[in-house]
Amino acid sequence: MTRPTWQRAAARYLPILDWGRRYDGAVLSSDLVAAVIVTIMLIPQSLAYAMLAGLPAEVGLYASVLPLVAYGIFGTSRTLAVGPVAVVSLMTASAIGEIAAQGTATYIAAAMLLALISGLMLIAMGLFRLGFVANFLSHPVISGFITASGLLIAAGQLKYILGVPAGGSTLTEIVTGLASSIGQTNAATLAVGVAVLGFLYFVRLRLKTLLTAAGMTPRGAEFVTKAGPVLAVAGTILATSFFGLGDRGVALVGAIPSGLPVPAIPVLDLELIRALAVPALLISLIGFVESVSVAQTLAAKRRQRIVPDQELIGLGAANIASAISSGYPVTGGFARSVVNFDAGAQTPAAGMFTAIGIAGATLFLTPLLADLPRATLAATIIVAVLSLVDLSALRRVWTYSKIDFSAMAATILGTLFLGVETGVVAGVALSLLLHLYRTSRPHMAVVGNVEGTEHFRNVERHAVTTSPEILSIRVDESLYFANSRYLEDRIAELTADRPELKHLILMCPAVNAIDASALESLEEINHRLDTAGITLHLSEVKGPVMDRLKRSHFLQELTGEVFFSQYQAVKKLGALQAA
Amino acid sequence: MTRPTWQRAAARYLPILDWGRRYDGAVLSSDLVAAVIVTIMLIPQSLAYAMLAGLPAEVGLYASVLPLVAYGIFGTSRTLAVGPVAVVSLMTASAIGEIAAQGTATYIAAAMLLALISGLMLIAMGLFRLGFVANFLSHPVISGFITASGLLIAAGQLKYILGVPAGGSTLTEIVTGLASSIGQTNAATLAVGVAVLGFLYFVRLRLKTLLTAAGMTPRGAEFVTKAGPVLAVAGTILATSFFGLGDRGVALVGAIPSGLPVPAIPVLDLELIRALAVPALLISLIGFVESVSVAQTLAAKRRQRIVPDQELIGLGAANIASAISSGYPVTGGFARSVVNFDAGAQTPAAGMFTAIGIAGATLFLTPLLADLPRATLAATIIVAVLSLVDLSALRRVWTYSKIDFSAMAATILGTLFLGVETGVVAGVALSLLLHLYRTSRPHMAVVGNVEGTEHFRNVERHAVTTSPEILSIRVDESLYFANSRYLEDRIAELTADRPELKHLILMCPAVNAIDASALESLEEINHRLDTAGITLHLSEVKGPVMDRLKRSHFLQELTGEVFFSQYQAVKKLGALQAA
Repeated sequence: MTRPTWQRAAARYLPILDWGRRYDGAVLSSDLVAAVIVTIMLIPQSLAYAMLAGLPAEVGLYASVLPLVAYGIFGTSRTLAVGPVAVVSLMTASAIGEIAAQGTATYIAAAMLLALISGLMLIAMGLFRLGFVANFLSHPVISGFITASGLLIAAGQLKYILGVPAGGSTLTEIVTGLASSIGQTNAATLAVGVAVLGFLYFVRLRLKTLLTAAGMTPRGAEFVTKAGPVLAVAGTILATSFFGLGDRGVALVGAIPSGLPVPAIPVLDLELIRALAVPALLISLIGFVESVSVAQTLAAKRRQRIVPDQELIGLGAANIASAISSGYPVTGGFARSVVNFDAGAQTPAAGMFTAIGIAGATLFLTPLLADLPRATLAATIIVAVLSLVDLSALRRVWTYSKIDFSAMAATILGTLFLGVETGVVAGVALSLLLHLYRTSRPHMAVVGNVEGTEHFRNVERHAVTTSPEILSIRVDESLYFANSRYLEDRIAELTADRPELKHLILMCPAVNAIDASALESLEEINHRLDTAGITLHLSEVKGPVMDRLKRSHFLQELTGEVFFSQYQAVKKLGALQAA
Repeated sequence: MTRPTWQRAAARYLPILDWGRRYDGAVLSSDLVAAVIVTIMLIPQSLAYAMLAGLPAEVGLYASVLPLVAYGIFGTSRTLAVGPVAVVSLMTASAIGEIAAQGTATYIAAAMLLALISGLMLIAMGLFRLGFVANFLSHPVISGFITASGLLIAAGQLKYILGVPAGGSTLTEIVTGLASSIGQTNAATLAVGVAVLGFLYFVRLRLKTLLTAAGMTPRGAEFVTKAGPVLAVAGTILATSFFGLGDRGVALVGAIPSGLPVPAIPVLDLELIRALAVPALLISLIGFVESVSVAQTLAAKRRQRIVPDQELIGLGAANIASAISSGYPVTGGFARSVVNFDAGAQTPAAGMFTAIGIAGATLFLTPLLADLPRATLAATIIVAVLSLVDLSALRRVWTYSKIDFSAMAATILGTLFLGVETGVVAGVALSLLLHLYRTSRPHMAVVGNVEGTEHFRNVERHAVTTSPEILSIRVDESLYFANSRYLEDRIAELTADRPELKHLILMCPAVNAIDASALESLEEINHRLDTAGITLHLSEVKGPVMDRLKRSHFLQELTGEVFFSQYQAVKKLGALQAA
């Protein structure tokens, strides 16, 4: 059954049409349960991440309402939960920190604009299928960046645990700031901070086992555990009024305006747009890569499918929704999505119900949050981000590949000591450079015949027969601009010392592509060998590579032949020599 | 026979020790003949290219003395002739034009400094074996850049043929300048320019045939032909004094100071060094690529060998020699090297004798050159550079690969309309981006067994047998960060619609490498398939790839097996299913 074009286009760009038409009561109740659980988890997280981004706490709530609805309409994952996340919040703080001072109206406007630019970039990438740009970010770069961001965020939150005025955006600045102000530590703040940290680690590491031992179901124990931050928030709010912590110098979140923001388009300042373009691109790419990876993992568990290009549109829509509702850049979060999935969410409607939950909290619960110590939020951030830090990855990558390790190390050091954007850019540049370096010297083996068989193997590793008139070289890499000159150099080297040489056979079973640079190098090699009286042959050329070669003059110019197999080549040329 | 370390190091870094010890009378006479011929050819060329670089004519002579000697000591090509060349001269003009006005002392000092920086960069690349950086410049980018430079240079010289004051560094500026000043054309200058152009084209296209027909040996005819520019220079100098062309408004080269420059280190202005760093890098890389390509071509004809890393040192030394003798950036030139080779040069001593010839000319012939019309030099430049323009390459590359064509077109348009550096940088950036794009979506085929054989082929192209429980996928590309996520996406897609699937086999005969990103993707795929109840297997993994995988935990985590051949895999798993 073929559907009209507009219907197919609508189904591609509006996944909601797909799951929406099969929605029923059973799915509804699953989605509602998940929404309640995620809402409870999101409230403290949203406040904390907004403050990490240098924004008023309520901005985190705003960024957790409309974006969930927008993603629900356009996104392809059934269970991804979008909203403020730690790394993107840090990147937001870093990008806007260069332009405006925290607490000013310009700062908030710039955050909205950043979300808008990022959203438009994501949608453009989705429409033009440019998602492959995210491939510039290799795993070691991403993982190094997240580890470094986690360390940087945790270090940056220590000032709230100590209750001291300190600042800084690089590790050096943060450590210097803390060192010079540690004498002003506020005892009450420190007590709250350490207590919450201890409580959260206890919840995370021990509570589940204890509850299960006490007879609770593993599922129930799991959810109580996830509610740890909410308990910490409630507990410290009560402690504040009970012990009068505000008067003892403990910094509190303070009055949060209740009510939802009126949708508005951010102010479009051209100067500001130019300044935010590069950070917005990095935020888009890193947010996209993280989000898609979470979505893929969850979709695979239920054999569902996500469409990366459409995910760009879903995340773009979420960011635009955030921008027009006084929010800031958002993306799919790991922890919240897993909770959503485990709580049984079936469709993005769960996200929409969560949005209603957060909207309700914004309207009715915010007066209760005024007494919340900032140290509590700092402690929840620290516990959350330290779980992102994966130092064992460094060791793993070191063992596996020194090249990948250096890209990772550069990203980590760059992020910690030079800044968030510099870190990513340095990592990307280095991984590109190293990739070119790695493929610029492909493995090439002189091969000979394994006697009595049709097989050819490396002369340095196997006992094989060769002839002084015929040189067979196997190239273990696609030929393209990064290695075409190396090929010329190596062949020049290998032929220079063989006065009796008459035939050179390039064995190409692992050559998946030959670009125009490599084609010209082959022409050059063919020509140079010709002037030296040596004939060039190819063997075992792959179908698609051969199709392309036929579109050039190379096969006409080639002094020798293209053989189906290396064995046929050596047999025929050997017979020629013998004759 | 092993030699002491210092001797081996000396032999590596001082190729002169190799050819110098076997120098004899026969080689000497060959080298002397070649030197005389090259000297005659170089005099007009050096003057012309210096003026193209916006420098006084004598600077071209200075840059043709010491650099030849330095290259002779450190270079590995026996016949390469270094000195001023067209493209590098244009790049010099473009780089310094932004900093100083032509004709000022600052301009000349900046040219010397540019040569020094470029020389130091080349030596550093040679010592640290960073020559692979030149691989960033793909053939289409280089060829597009040279074509565009040729057109730009030719267009820029038209003002000297017309005798009008016009300027501009992009094609738009040059054409606008010419259009607005064409009314001021000087008739006598135009006559000289057109006459020389006509003469040079006659020499180039017809003279050789005529001389050979008249009984001259082909070799002799060849050399008379190469002397065309010298004849034009001599002829127009005589015409100037005979017809009093100077008084008729024909611009002349004017008094050239005779005598050689006193060696001196260029002024090291930090501000200037910073401004010249990027142009110096581009000049180094383009000069190196061009020079090595010429050197390889000539070395191959005599089955000699050049060492690219040592070539960097040779060219670096030549540039430093140029810098301290009041010269400007130099590199190995195509035309002069071919003449040197064809004239029978055997060793770099020919270059040293040429240097003595040019030094002699600088001392004794310069007074004769004052009456040389600039239009003559402009005409020799136009004829020389138009031979670099290769528009047929555009068509060739278009047919072969649209991706390579777009990098080439971007380079040409960028160079012509935005400037020389922008053109190269745009081309390099685009070719990198497109390379990633190309390899980011590798060819992957679902394969099945060709019945009755052990072969496996694409199910879409061949009649093969498959089973609903086993899915075999062949990946035709190395797996690395640019395509690892695509692999995840494709496998998610391919498994989503197969409810009966139990085993997935990745067939890897064309996978030459697996980097850390791809390893993580494989781990992720393994994990996701596991949660969906599908076992992942690999088959036909290459030796080096397997060695590396053994250094990770992947093989322990892999839910399935690694099979030596795809056939064994399917046989064993099929038997399992049947059981």
